[in-house]
Amino acid sequence: MKRLITPVRYQGDSLEILDQTLLPEQEKYIQLDGLDRVVDAIKELRVRGAPAIGIAAAYGYIIGLKNGLDEDEVFNRLSSSRPTAVNLFQALNRMRAAYYEALERRAGEHDVITRLEQAAKGIEHEDLQASLEMAEKGLELMADARVVLTHCNTGALATAGLGTALGVIRKLFEEGNLELVIATETRPLLQGARLTAWELEKYGIPYRLIVDSAAPYIMKKYGVDAVVVGADRVARNGDTANKIGTFMLAVAADYLNIPFYVVCPESTIDEETDTGADIVIEERDGREVSFVGGLKIAPSPGRCLNYAFDVTPARLITAVITDKRIIYPDRC
Amino acid sequence: MKRLITPVRYQGDSLEILDQTLLPEQEKYIQLDGLDRVVDAIKELRVRGAPAIGIAAAYGYIIGLKNGLDEDEVFNRLSSSRPTAVNLFQALNRMRAAYYEALERRAGEHDVITRLEQAAKGIEHEDLQASLEMAEKGLELMADARVVLTHCNTGALATAGLGTALGVIRKLFEEGNLELVIATETRPLLQGARLTAWELEKYGIPYRLIVDSAAPYIMKKYGVDAVVVGADRVARNGDTANKIGTFMLAVAADYLNIPFYVVCPESTIDEETDTGADIVIEERDGREVSFVGGLKIAPSPGRCLNYAFDVTPARLITAVITDKRIIYPDRC
Repeated sequence: MKRLITPVRYQGDSLEILDQTLLPEQEKYIQLDGLDRVVDAIKELRVRGAPAIGIAAAYGYIIGLKNGLDEDEVFNRLSSSRPTAVNLFQALNRMRAAYYEALERRAGEHDVITRLEQAAKGIEHEDLQASLEMAEKGLELMADARVVLTHCNTGALATAGLGTALGVIRKLFEEGNLELVIATETRPLLQGARLTAWELEKYGIPYRLIVDSAAPYIMKKYGVDAVVVGADRVARNGDTANKIGTFMLAVAADYLNIPFYVVCPESTIDEETDTGADIVIEERDGREVSFVGGLKIAPSPGRCLNYAFDVTPARLITAVITDKRIIYPDRC
Repeated sequence: MKRLITPVRYQGDSLEILDQTLLPEQEKYIQLDGLDRVVDAIKELRVRGAPAIGIAAAYGYIIGLKNGLDEDEVFNRLSSSRPTAVNLFQALNRMRAAYYEALERRAGEHDVITRLEQAAKGIEHEDLQASLEMAEKGLELMADARVVLTHCNTGALATAGLGTALGVIRKLFEEGNLELVIATETRPLLQGARLTAWELEKYGIPYRLIVDSAAPYIMKKYGVDAVVVGADRVARNGDTANKIGTFMLAVAADYLNIPFYVVCPESTIDEETDTGADIVIEERDGREVSFVGGLKIAPSPGRCLNYAFDVTPARLITAVITDKRIIYPDRC
């Protein structure tokens, strides 16, 4: 698999990201020249997807320190930008460890930055490697699948440039029997419609886009062979926090006896979290529901509930595919 | 319950409808002065909801004949405007029967129209009565419900002016223990966000609006006591065609052990249709998915699947509540 899309780019002084809020209409990179802009870009989902957020935060940490900010402030502001994505905290913890290690060696300012750049590049490189490993393992499990359904965007745009669930799907198309991808639009922010459809067109993979609520009916009607999604955080028992709607897909897959796979790097598994009940679910502004683009579609934003994620219990998950292993949560 | 909203109004020469595509921003009635405009209004969902479509078609039949069109043409063009709504065919069959009966009596042109107006008013009046009966029966089953979830719009706007599922919900609020309604936005055409939220505000009923895919998670998190939906067609065995997403809600309700109720007038039960497999599901233009208002949200309309309805198997339905009876489909 070739890396065709790079959502986060760091070149010496400058960090730039492909602004995902402008896709599919505009393909535009924006410069993030200060900590505020990095934090805002994460909050506003200009960069999104758990692994890509981790990478952007790692480089954002460097930008913050370069601009002379206090390390504690840099760490805390970045870590509070998206509460659910575990990769964010792990990336920041690695950056912090590298920072203190360099300080202990009494490295000069220039050397500290060089060490941090190595650390951030390490995180990015490992994510690319992890995508390739996940794709291999996904192919082992799903080589026969002709039709798969996916949710949200878990492709190049969500990672260092290959993808988790969508990386597996690319692999199934290149080396398996995949004929058709069903992509859900993924309200409220339409990452499926705006981003996954755009990626699938870039790769030349046949797909159909549907409204989210149609998924169970289409799974039945089109004989979907597998549902493949990403994850924002997997608890130790296998409970998985992922984009709102994932629980709905897992319940439907269970009802229809369709395998349900979660694909994420090992770093998304949070050993500190026992079960899904311990995962903080981000509640976002109701205006994301009541407005689409600038268009008002509902009378009162204040009456909207907007949980960005939900939790799928382990027993609805056939397997969690990571770069290191395939986990079969106990089906009770 | 008072009738606060009248989606279809017929006064002598003129038929007018509240244009539901303009809600909630504009509350505007439009004149339908010819058969073309009636057919287009139904196709474009300016008037929608199975019972309201039946009423609009009944009056549209009169408009067509008054304009000197051939009865066959009037009947056929109206009956092909929405394939899934059974009330449409029933209303047209009743109008046709009234027409031939008047012809047999050798009634003059004026008398034929008078007879047809009586028939159409009869359909409208029966629908209002049916709403009141369904509300009573719904209250019997759900008097204790504190939180209910509903889909699409099944209120005054979808009927002669009270509602099916939303009529029950109004009754539960007025005379039961209802504290909160969860309304799904109902993509692609957002009848929940645009119409149900607007009606609930008019009635002063507390509600929260959610994206469709959040429904199962919210059902669990908010302890939803019942899911209450309408129907476009119920087969003899209880299989129910209703707005896309209904099957998803029924599967989730089953998984979570929440009662799932379908509310529709007896006329929505189609004794000619054995099971859901025999129901023609309308497939609409992909642009309804790829555009919201004028805004393009996906790269290729041609890649969208847009089934307007799905079929929920009888065994997922706790009860079908009609104006005449409560049906408990066999749970196999």
